[in-house]
Amino acid sequence: MKAIVQTTEGDPAALELQEVPKPTLQPGEVLVKVAASGVNRADLTQAEGNYPPPKGASDILGLECAGEIADAGDTNREVGEKVGALLVGGGYAEYVAVPEGQLLPIPEGFSFAETAAVIETACTVWSNIVMEVGLSKGETILIHGGGGGIGLMAIQIAKAIGATVAVTAGSAEKLEVCKSYGADILINYKEQDFAEELKNQCDVILDIVGGPYLKKNMFALAKGGRMITIGLQGGNKAEINMGVMMMKDISLHGTTLRRRSPEVKAEIVRQTVKNVWPMLEDGRVKNHIHETLPLADAAKALNHLVESSHTGKVVLVQ
Amino acid sequence: MKAIVQTTEGDPAALELQEVPKPTLQPGEVLVKVAASGVNRADLTQAEGNYPPPKGASDILGLECAGEIADAGDTNREVGEKVGALLVGGGYAEYVAVPEGQLLPIPEGFSFAETAAVIETACTVWSNIVMEVGLSKGETILIHGGGGGIGLMAIQIAKAIGATVAVTAGSAEKLEVCKSYGADILINYKEQDFAEELKNQCDVILDIVGGPYLKKNMFALAKGGRMITIGLQGGNKAEINMGVMMMKDISLHGTTLRRRSPEVKAEIVRQTVKNVWPMLEDGRVKNHIHETLPLADAAKALNHLVESSHTGKVVLVQ
Repeated sequence: MKAIVQTTEGDPAALELQEVPKPTLQPGEVLVKVAASGVNRADLTQAEGNYPPPKGASDILGLECAGEIADAGDTNREVGEKVGALLVGGGYAEYVAVPEGQLLPIPEGFSFAETAAVIETACTVWSNIVMEVGLSKGETILIHGGGGGIGLMAIQIAKAIGATVAVTAGSAEKLEVCKSYGADILINYKEQDFAEELKNQCDVILDIVGGPYLKKNMFALAKGGRMITIGLQGGNKAEINMGVMMMKDISLHGTTLRRRSPEVKAEIVRQTVKNVWPMLEDGRVKNHIHETLPLADAAKALNHLVESSHTGKVVLVQ
Repeated sequence: MKAIVQTTEGDPAALELQEVPKPTLQPGEVLVKVAASGVNRADLTQAEGNYPPPKGASDILGLECAGEIADAGDTNREVGEKVGALLVGGGYAEYVAVPEGQLLPIPEGFSFAETAAVIETACTVWSNIVMEVGLSKGETILIHGGGGGIGLMAIQIAKAIGATVAVTAGSAEKLEVCKSYGADILINYKEQDFAEELKNQCDVILDIVGGPYLKKNMFALAKGGRMITIGLQGGNKAEINMGVMMMKDISLHGTTLRRRSPEVKAEIVRQTVKNVWPMLEDGRVKNHIHETLPLADAAKALNHLVESSHTGKVVLVQ
């Protein structure tokens, strides 16, 4: 089959479409013929050599896709069924093997590209802001990096839950996009100190920055606040004052969706389909595709993330 | 009324029984005539000047008591009803004002002293290891300071839940007491490295040390592990690697029971009575009183904590 192969280790520009062996199915897996693959920041980090795939996973990039079942393996699925899939890797390819628990239905009225654009962000946002830290109606959430794929999804899901949404972003243009997706409080981190603006106000923070923001995030958390860190774009080390955690009844959480067990992923997929798919189908949550590109242009797709110039998702189609 | 008054600020030895004004009741409060008051490490910290009472609270020491209702205020309680009470302060006195939601029934067959010995530890342990971080059957919990009042309560509640219990303590004698209360894994922190012994094995950690143990605690946490910090005996500052939190799906929690809102305290009291009182009444959780002393000997009682020589609780009786 055709797949994107990295020809120089650590160089995200060195990606070529080449012939590789088709994956073989393990028990409980189906083979999906990929029609569209979502592009995520984690793909870029992996291509740069800083996010090795978990043991046993494909070394081909790609954490989400949509397409048709080409081989149902030992499952009761039907060949030809149209599905989305949450992947541990392998999405930038013609075929990918997927544990059945990580298959998702195509939302009503959605194309393959629209489906592939939404799986990783929807599962990431729902599992973290709801399943992990219990965002609820009437609470305030701060979403760092509001203009990215995760950010725009988080804004919309949080608004659908009934939360007040604050976002940070690095330009007035990105903040305008956040606003158009429902964000209530807009903070340009290049011009404003989010911690001062939101002192003791945030019930939940969705963090992608890590170390350099820890102290400020703890300052912005309200009593009983919960922070969930899903990215470390600023680095992983920080000094922490555990007395602040105690005095404010704070909890700090960290996760990576990719490294969770297949059982946990299946539960995340189940709850995401149950809760977020209706939001997609009735338009409360909109799909924001920045650009679709042919699979062969994977390097160009990752370069969009390097430049950090886009809002929304990039999708590779076949 | 008589109450313990601190005659030299910051000196836990300078405690005298003196005449002070009786507390006046706020709406929703009852007046309890105190028969017995539990002694907690937080009392010592407060007497040393390092744990000021929350705004509006009594500056008299004492976070738990048992006795009889002397004035029901605007509530429907009966004068003469025997009760326990979770306090924000004021327990080392003849009378104390208590929000009705913080009253607890006397467990069947318990004396006032036995009741006063158990309230703060039971509410602290249940609210933290169950309500905050969800310890469940089959999981492993590490309890630091297993030989103290909180430690012995935590061992027994965790065993009653069906968890495997590891403890740290600083002497073979204390570890023997922990074992007699059900602890499965005994670690002398002066001779062993708990992090090496329990690497990646702890689903829950109940922490009273803070900063100096953070890195080791994160090393000992299993994937999906949760740590709850309720004391900072070693200090509040630490360096944290947030990457470890993400890779292991860890969460870190901090609380102080005392600073929680009356509404949260009432819910904690309700759930503790519902879940822990039956364990006390059928003997699954035993009450461990180290010594009872007259109220006038409050300084001597706190000195037991300075020396850290005891296991179990000290109770002041009138």
